[in-house]
Amino acid sequence: MRKLLPALYYLHRDGHLHPDTRILALARAQHSLESYGKLVRRHVSQHVARGDFDTAQWERFAERLDYLSLDVSQRVAFPRLTKVLSPGTGRVRVFYLATMPALFAATVQHLSSVGLVDEHARVVLEKPLGESLETANEINDRIGKVFDESRVFRIDHYLGKEAVQNLLALRFGNALFEPLWRNAHIDHVQISVLESVGVENRGDYYDRAGAMRDMVQNHLLQLLCLVAMEAPVHFEPEAVRNEKLKILEALRPITGMDVQDRTVRGQYGAGQHAGERLPAYYFEKKVDHDSNTETFVALKTEVDNWRWAGVPFYLRTGKCMAQRKSEIVIQFKPVPHRLFPRTGDNPENNRLIISLQPDEGIRLSLMAKSPGRGMGLQNVDLNLDFAAAFTRRRWDAYERLLLDVIEGDATLFMRRDEIEAAWRWVDPIIEGWGDFYRSPKPYAAGSWGPDAADSLLERLGHSWLDPRY
Amino acid sequence: MRKLLPALYYLHRDGHLHPDTRILALARAQHSLESYGKLVRRHVSQHVARGDFDTAQWERFAERLDYLSLDVSQRVAFPRLTKVLSPGTGRVRVFYLATMPALFAATVQHLSSVGLVDEHARVVLEKPLGESLETANEINDRIGKVFDESRVFRIDHYLGKEAVQNLLALRFGNALFEPLWRNAHIDHVQISVLESVGVENRGDYYDRAGAMRDMVQNHLLQLLCLVAMEAPVHFEPEAVRNEKLKILEALRPITGMDVQDRTVRGQYGAGQHAGERLPAYYFEKKVDHDSNTETFVALKTEVDNWRWAGVPFYLRTGKCMAQRKSEIVIQFKPVPHRLFPRTGDNPENNRLIISLQPDEGIRLSLMAKSPGRGMGLQNVDLNLDFAAAFTRRRWDAYERLLLDVIEGDATLFMRRDEIEAAWRWVDPIIEGWGDFYRSPKPYAAGSWGPDAADSLLERLGHSWLDPRY
Repeated sequence: MRKLLPALYYLHRDGHLHPDTRILALARAQHSLESYGKLVRRHVSQHVARGDFDTAQWERFAERLDYLSLDVSQRVAFPRLTKVLSPGTGRVRVFYLATMPALFAATVQHLSSVGLVDEHARVVLEKPLGESLETANEINDRIGKVFDESRVFRIDHYLGKEAVQNLLALRFGNALFEPLWRNAHIDHVQISVLESVGVENRGDYYDRAGAMRDMVQNHLLQLLCLVAMEAPVHFEPEAVRNEKLKILEALRPITGMDVQDRTVRGQYGAGQHAGERLPAYYFEKKVDHDSNTETFVALKTEVDNWRWAGVPFYLRTGKCMAQRKSEIVIQFKPVPHRLFPRTGDNPENNRLIISLQPDEGIRLSLMAKSPGRGMGLQNVDLNLDFAAAFTRRRWDAYERLLLDVIEGDATLFMRRDEIEAAWRWVDPIIEGWGDFYRSPKPYAAGSWGPDAADSLLERLGHSWLDPRY
Repeated sequence: MRKLLPALYYLHRDGHLHPDTRILALARAQHSLESYGKLVRRHVSQHVARGDFDTAQWERFAERLDYLSLDVSQRVAFPRLTKVLSPGTGRVRVFYLATMPALFAATVQHLSSVGLVDEHARVVLEKPLGESLETANEINDRIGKVFDESRVFRIDHYLGKEAVQNLLALRFGNALFEPLWRNAHIDHVQISVLESVGVENRGDYYDRAGAMRDMVQNHLLQLLCLVAMEAPVHFEPEAVRNEKLKILEALRPITGMDVQDRTVRGQYGAGQHAGERLPAYYFEKKVDHDSNTETFVALKTEVDNWRWAGVPFYLRTGKCMAQRKSEIVIQFKPVPHRLFPRTGDNPENNRLIISLQPDEGIRLSLMAKSPGRGMGLQNVDLNLDFAAAFTRRRWDAYERLLLDVIEGDATLFMRRDEIEAAWRWVDPIIEGWGDFYRSPKPYAAGSWGPDAADSLLERLGHSWLDPRY
């Protein structure tokens, strides 16, 4: 309601959907098409930008919509689906499983059993895919029996963001950055995905998953791949995904005692945000009162290859943080020799900051001369503000990704071996936590996480790029 | 009236002048201090920014002013000067010779003869210093007998511009640019100093000098030095000027037949600019009707050292051009391998543009992703707009340079050996013009110069970064 249908509405409005394209919604709830249509209309009109909801357009969009009440966990229900979707029409069909991962495998098997999976069918799966390498393999094996890998689209909406794709455009579309994009010039990299909200009403899922499985295994590692990957031969699915896989395989493993040294896990306690009192995690709905689930992870890793040897990559994600902020910080090394006096307390080292949330943008932080006498330097930012730079409306990540699925372009989707490599790296950390320190460190809701997350960087003289510093 | 006195007024107003600082104006015209004060007041109030002229400040500034009617070419006049300036007071005295270069040597000798040149005295000389290596040496020799080289300040107001100093700040205050600042990454460099006006009332001087002596020998070569120089050991006068000298000495000589190949000289004919009819150069006041003096020069040179081997440096200057524009363009090489499709007709190669006139600014031209589907690239500019970036008023070049003289800092002034090296490189070109093609190519006033200036770049597939392209 918040993302997919508004994205489809925009694709419709902007003429990217074929006239024959139909959208069929399936859920357990009993709805007439009319009541479902009203529900969608209310949500879409709220979630598109002001002025973008147009009644005439909506009418035509609503004609594409259909609704079927169906419990996807029940195989016996599926023959009813074939009354709406005839098998064997040779048309492209995208099955978007916006459901619990535990239902993925069964659902695709049921689709197949009624003949709806042909060579034109595609399936979209949302993260997290499994809870470990083993369970992910199990799901992927079962799905793989029905859908060829080339038709499985594992979606990560971070990869659909303009700022993320601009990271690739900056790196590989410009001659300026690539020569600097290596250990000789980059001091360290920070990737932060911070949420200000708590678990909200996802307590049952979250308490089983935790921040590592929910965020690090997918979003953060995917962003790390895009920062660190070599230039692919061409910008096509297998070439790009091969390069990402190489990064995941080059990630230095964190195992055994290293888990304590290089990772920090935290869990929010009671606190405040913007004047509002927030409950501790273990008092959230559907969360175990004795929960040891982490709501915060910070860790330090390295990419063990020629380009990146010696460059720390710091990852951090958390709920109930002081600020909602997702960003990638490329911190360059200091100038080798200082010629000019420094003015003020500004940072001296160059930085490239790719902001993903709350706003998308790219900022290059440089030193320029302070006006007037002398040659004192001060910090200035060169901004690529997307809203200002481009007059066209920016696409939401889901618009782009949904259209990519319809067109069969898997470049921005995760291949099975990427998922596996990510789990292979994540699993030992989760195991290490079980073996060595079961309790996450507490932090106040509305803070910047446990102090240990700061100490992790301070050892090498680094610090998180937060407004508090 | 337009530059120096407004600059002194600003220095006074902003508290940079010592309470005892006095300003003594000398000229042949008969003025009472009162009438001179009124004249200055009128000009200063016109030439400072709106709102910066303050009557109370002016009153105090006027107290520093004095005027003496004196013909500096007459030695007998100088004893009168000592009635206003006592010799041997041990105070810093700056003699600013805003006069014809032919009077430089005699003036300093006269100052010396009445005991006004001690170790605290400094002299400021404006360009052009001589008309050739020989005549420059003669002037410098004679001045050198009176003033030690450390107390001779050869001013080039281009070097006082914030944008020019920011070029140094960008290069040596940031880790980002220096690794790219070499032949491996830079395709070519363009330095343009274009004026939209003609010779105005300087016909007599200009017709003897021409664009090469008036602009290339000083401003353009100085800018080239700042682009190309190695990092100095420290930002102090001798260290910086040693590095600039090395560039002048590494400039590939243009001699003999090369003059025809690598230089273009032009002279404006009748034309129009902004709807106004402009006369041909040879009809300007005090210009010889048969004049072969060039009002336009374009040339291609190289800096023969490890850093720059193979990188063309294109210089261009002219009067009566289509646009008033001074800028340095650093054109980077294309990406070695193109991954993304190109969108539109935008340039694909990265550029750094340092604008000096009419506005000062720095612009980094990059490729970013076009919004929406696909991975098409489009050009975006990251701007360092000084007016926006710095809330403080920007200094005029003369303010900074005058204060540097008062404080004895010669970093931004030209040392004698620089002047000589520049003449040594320029002289053979002027000689070549005399030997091979006496007549400059005509171009219409208000145009972009002779076509040959474009062909000069086209041979290597380059083109001037002008709005006409």
